[in-house]
Amino acid sequence: MAAFEVRERSLLIGGVPLPEVARRAGRTPFYAYDRQVMTRRVQALREALPRDLSVHYAMKANPMPAVVGHMASLVDGLDVASGRELQIALDAGVSAADISFAGPGKSPAELEMAVAAGITIHLESETELTRVAVIAERTGKTPCVAVRVNPDFELKTSGMKMSGGPKVFGVDAECVPEMLGRIDELGLHFRGFHIFSGSQNLRAESLVEAQGLTLDLALRLADHAPGPVETLNIGGGFGIPYFPGDQPLTLGPIAEQLEQRLPEVRARMPRAEIILELGRYLVGEAGVYVAEILDRKVSRGRVFLVTNGGLHHHLAASGNFGQVIRKNYPVAIGNRMGETNTEVVDVVGPLCTPLDVLGQQVELPRAEIGDLVVVFQSGAYGYTASPRGFLSHPEPAEILV
Amino acid sequence: MAAFEVRERSLLIGGVPLPEVARRAGRTPFYAYDRQVMTRRVQALREALPRDLSVHYAMKANPMPAVVGHMASLVDGLDVASGRELQIALDAGVSAADISFAGPGKSPAELEMAVAAGITIHLESETELTRVAVIAERTGKTPCVAVRVNPDFELKTSGMKMSGGPKVFGVDAECVPEMLGRIDELGLHFRGFHIFSGSQNLRAESLVEAQGLTLDLALRLADHAPGPVETLNIGGGFGIPYFPGDQPLTLGPIAEQLEQRLPEVRARMPRAEIILELGRYLVGEAGVYVAEILDRKVSRGRVFLVTNGGLHHHLAASGNFGQVIRKNYPVAIGNRMGETNTEVVDVVGPLCTPLDVLGQQVELPRAEIGDLVVVFQSGAYGYTASPRGFLSHPEPAEILV
Repeated sequence: MAAFEVRERSLLIGGVPLPEVARRAGRTPFYAYDRQVMTRRVQALREALPRDLSVHYAMKANPMPAVVGHMASLVDGLDVASGRELQIALDAGVSAADISFAGPGKSPAELEMAVAAGITIHLESETELTRVAVIAERTGKTPCVAVRVNPDFELKTSGMKMSGGPKVFGVDAECVPEMLGRIDELGLHFRGFHIFSGSQNLRAESLVEAQGLTLDLALRLADHAPGPVETLNIGGGFGIPYFPGDQPLTLGPIAEQLEQRLPEVRARMPRAEIILELGRYLVGEAGVYVAEILDRKVSRGRVFLVTNGGLHHHLAASGNFGQVIRKNYPVAIGNRMGETNTEVVDVVGPLCTPLDVLGQQVELPRAEIGDLVVVFQSGAYGYTASPRGFLSHPEPAEILV
Repeated sequence: MAAFEVRERSLLIGGVPLPEVARRAGRTPFYAYDRQVMTRRVQALREALPRDLSVHYAMKANPMPAVVGHMASLVDGLDVASGRELQIALDAGVSAADISFAGPGKSPAELEMAVAAGITIHLESETELTRVAVIAERTGKTPCVAVRVNPDFELKTSGMKMSGGPKVFGVDAECVPEMLGRIDELGLHFRGFHIFSGSQNLRAESLVEAQGLTLDLALRLADHAPGPVETLNIGGGFGIPYFPGDQPLTLGPIAEQLEQRLPEVRARMPRAEIILELGRYLVGEAGVYVAEILDRKVSRGRVFLVTNGGLHHHLAASGNFGQVIRKNYPVAIGNRMGETNTEVVDVVGPLCTPLDVLGQQVELPRAEIGDLVVVFQSGAYGYTASPRGFLSHPEPAEILV
């Protein structure tokens, strides 16, 4: 993978040879995240996009406190999806003004935390607005709220569609003006809008179309705003390549449209911070999952590399997290990079289930017990999005290098 | 669901009305498991099957220590799938002679624990045999081993095929005689065979066929045994119904074949305990997952019940754990059982992903905020098989009633 260098057959994570990273982790399996790769990714993004666009990190992609701390030093704000994420964001020293909280099922306790901290709550329903108003009255604090909008358009060819038609995310665009009126009446601090239409999209033209429609919608809604729009979160949805044939996203067309359209938006919303909210795109390629080969087994002519890691640690790589057709994540033998004595193998985990597969019929250098299997593109939705208690195996370590 | 009674609109778990169970759990969401339902299930199974057949509980289905403790009082032994499960089994007071450990990727540390405890290790490869022999030599202990066999047949129409062809599970049938010779040479305590061909099967005729072939294979292999066969684990694979149209498994044909064939097996292996190993079948129907409605939201004419629980707690019910087509698990409003004022709704969780669905377009009594959504058939592969860290939401409680 382009993100990582190789030295003397060994993959380098944060410039450190993989076997040394493994010793530092103290055990296998482990996730390792590379600071430099994240830093370079944010720099490249900022260089490609208009200068005055803000970039927020969506913590749900990888909420490891050390990763959040590093990301906080690179981006302009954080988006949290739960009370626990909010605590991690505050612990990282991020200012409350730069933290927002979206999610269709915020609990009363989470809303309480959000109001107390003074972060921006992205309202997803009338019920949430009422709950926030009750907290305001009881505590005397003025909550900061934005409205998450369920647009009247869809993001095409998105990995996950999250807008258009009836949706649990956000307030239907046509109901937003009424909600803005209520926010005004209730005396809440109106921050702005959050319009998010999908995720894991690799096609620039789809993102360009969605962002164009998002800006149109924001301009329409701004007419009803009870005060100046301070934040306009236009979502993200930038994908990363996982599978053979996936092409990395081209930022050019996205940047071009934003350059063209932002002047109009700025003219109409002079105080608005325009925010691109990205999770997977910022950290996904910076992480690897590493497991150790416990056994090398030949059954009826087929070679199985049995590792101590698998679907319990990395559900998405096993192909069991919402995927219809299983495809292999990119894998390698991290201590035999570039070796040419290859064979076709199945890389499997230790679980008593045929679902526990990290690589099916992949060509890899001939590997032995003790070698390290690396699964790339594992910096997002890996550790936290996996059933780590499954079959009660040990937890993987998690380190930032 | 037939397993649970209803009193005054309230589902009863262990005879206790659901709102009271929720108060006892101390929070929502929670998993609740019903002792009586497990007890009745094991009794019914024993009544249906030949009297001298042993029943083992495969702990991976539900390793909650209290559940394991209860199951240990009902069954003849436990099968563990990891070192942690082994500890829970020993803590439950089960004799080492009645505990077996299968799994294709046992770590050296786990093998060490297994030898120290004196349980039966189901060998899955030559490497494992060698590792166990080295531990025996170093510690002076005599390990108890059985051979897990990868049969030369498949279990048809199984939810998961785990035998036949090249597989990571067990030793290929044709290689077993040689391994038995090595076990003899190495002076290990030979316990018997483990032949397991699949799981979650609802068709009695498939199970009958597989068990017939399993017994044939066991009889052939017994000729090569280095000592008397003490245990013959014929696997399980009994399924439970999850989806509309699923019919519960009929035990009659299975019992009939076993009655016919066991005399021959007993004649050839007079000292063998013949073991049926079941997980999901024993506990799956005894458990419910319960979440609380946080919001009732109408988007463009569609009603969403937003709960505080979802795929992070119950991945399989969300349809994202290896399922190709999403189907609804049986769901109910546990405090409005039998109410006739129904509507069609989507039951969703709090996560920022459209995958977080517990029920899609299901007809339920009209529900309000604070009501309890119940997902049935949740006693197996629920709590431990879910990505509970996803989006850093609170863990569900887990209680045995």
